[in-house]
Amino acid sequence: MAPVGIDEIYAARERIRDVAVQTPLVPAIGLDVPAGNRLWLKAENFQRTWSFKLRGGYNAVAGLEAAERSRGVITYSSGNHGQAVACAASLLGIPAVIVMPEDAIPVKVEMTRRFGAEVVFAGHSSLDRQERAMELAETHGYAVIPPFDDQRIIAGQGTVGLEIVEQFPEVEAVVVQVGGGGLISGVATAVKALRPEVRVIGVEPEGAADARDSWTSGTLSTWPSVETVADGLRTSRVGELNFATMRELVDDIVTVTDEEILSTVRMLVNGAKLVAEPSGAVAPAAVLADRTGLRDTRIVAIISGGNIDPARLRSCLEPDTSPEDIDARA
Amino acid sequence: MAPVGIDEIYAARERIRDVAVQTPLVPAIGLDVPAGNRLWLKAENFQRTWSFKLRGGYNAVAGLEAAERSRGVITYSSGNHGQAVACAASLLGIPAVIVMPEDAIPVKVEMTRRFGAEVVFAGHSSLDRQERAMELAETHGYAVIPPFDDQRIIAGQGTVGLEIVEQFPEVEAVVVQVGGGGLISGVATAVKALRPEVRVIGVEPEGAADARDSWTSGTLSTWPSVETVADGLRTSRVGELNFATMRELVDDIVTVTDEEILSTVRMLVNGAKLVAEPSGAVAPAAVLADRTGLRDTRIVAIISGGNIDPARLRSCLEPDTSPEDIDARA
Repeated sequence: MAPVGIDEIYAARERIRDVAVQTPLVPAIGLDVPAGNRLWLKAENFQRTWSFKLRGGYNAVAGLEAAERSRGVITYSSGNHGQAVACAASLLGIPAVIVMPEDAIPVKVEMTRRFGAEVVFAGHSSLDRQERAMELAETHGYAVIPPFDDQRIIAGQGTVGLEIVEQFPEVEAVVVQVGGGGLISGVATAVKALRPEVRVIGVEPEGAADARDSWTSGTLSTWPSVETVADGLRTSRVGELNFATMRELVDDIVTVTDEEILSTVRMLVNGAKLVAEPSGAVAPAAVLADRTGLRDTRIVAIISGGNIDPARLRSCLEPDTSPEDIDARA
Repeated sequence: MAPVGIDEIYAARERIRDVAVQTPLVPAIGLDVPAGNRLWLKAENFQRTWSFKLRGGYNAVAGLEAAERSRGVITYSSGNHGQAVACAASLLGIPAVIVMPEDAIPVKVEMTRRFGAEVVFAGHSSLDRQERAMELAETHGYAVIPPFDDQRIIAGQGTVGLEIVEQFPEVEAVVVQVGGGGLISGVATAVKALRPEVRVIGVEPEGAADARDSWTSGTLSTWPSVETVADGLRTSRVGELNFATMRELVDDIVTVTDEEILSTVRMLVNGAKLVAEPSGAVAPAAVLADRTGLRDTRIVAIISGGNIDPARLRSCLEPDTSPEDIDARA
């Protein structure tokens, strides 16, 4: 696969224009930002489906040819990408099948079904889901919309980067969470094409830092198991296309602890009046916990999503909550 | 006092430009909006001090002449206006005294002191506080910055209306909470000057609906007692200047119940990923509970503030919480 270029990101923007929210940049004036840095939050928690995933998902589905569309789309995801594809298919009036794990959280199943998608359950691992999706695609002729290692997905996520640079020309660094690497690949492509001097820094949870290892060693690394409160970032390895882009364009990858992620969810509520899911808080956490190495810098950190259920949010707001407490209640 | 004109609102905007946040309009795509209406939220919970009050407070303090400034400012407020004046004085490097009730909530006292203001305690009623502030102003030569019935305050709050019209030219109705009436007076002045066909609708809690009575009867009405979970709107009567403006420019005033306010706080968190205080949720509540009478209309509702303490927010997020529960815990 060839890397995505800025032209594909501009094309994605046209495709998603009437559907995606151009989310605001919120200045984090109520947060205690260390090291002389100043922080703005790109609020993708306000995005349709409450996550940036809608951008890539819609770009991929809307870009299918008529014959492909008519047979429907399929994806494998227990989370935000599944909802994004279900929403995109619903908006475009085409059938969607979302393969989820057998122990999927009921509220996520319900949200996905609310968009009219068919939910199919398969095993427990992401490999189980992917295999089942491929089988069904083969049998029924569905178009597969993968969650991250895909040019259309990367181009869609890259529109976040375009918006940041246009909304805030004074930006000096963009801080982005890394799961499969689709968001940071797209954002880095857009930012570096338009403003090569702006630093792009990736952030991973300490318990799922495969991308940091890959980026540091120069070889695609797989973590046999990952453990983090940031459920959207529990990927064992980044996509190959994403890795190539990250190696070329990303300036650094740093990590944050689960404690830092959860206290950032709380600080975002209390100090910025924003509701982020744990994965969504990972990039701001790196800035607030001073993990980026940046000093006296105008930073945009992406809040990638806001899909946190009310019970979990309540427990995040208890000051003495530990990550274990949260996981038990999720 | 002469009514405030659009020129004074433009002047206020220049005065507050480097200090106030131009807050975003967030499309409420994740909320169930009845009656064919579409809703955008003007997020003043992102404002400095987490409330629109900073606009009027800063405009008033910054507009003082040098001699007045040097003697310092005083106001009477247990809530957001007190913090706004304390913040404004701090930014301008002048002394501030905030008169608060003897039973003021400790966190509000602490927030006010954090801006370097001196806190003086006086009685329990707003009249007690006002009298004490006037005495102190007389003795020490402080400039009094009243919370709402004041041209400089109204002009500052009016900048919210300017921004709404400029950010969203397609707006057809603006829905605004009413306490003392400063916000709605300013917003109505700006909106009607620029776009006379846009409807401006006030919203009060049912238990503090003095402005609705005044507006309906044409005579300034005082409620001997008010009771509402929206602590920022517990005013017994609107200001005289505000009343004159409201009679001339406001199209309707409607009410919402405490239950509607609290369920809106919850819906804003879950469906819009925004944290509002109960008073801040009053205008959105009128739209979500279909109290506005509007149909098939593009509506902007103001979230006037986000100052809610974490314990109270947690209890708001419990689905079966009643207003009595919340008051007991606040």
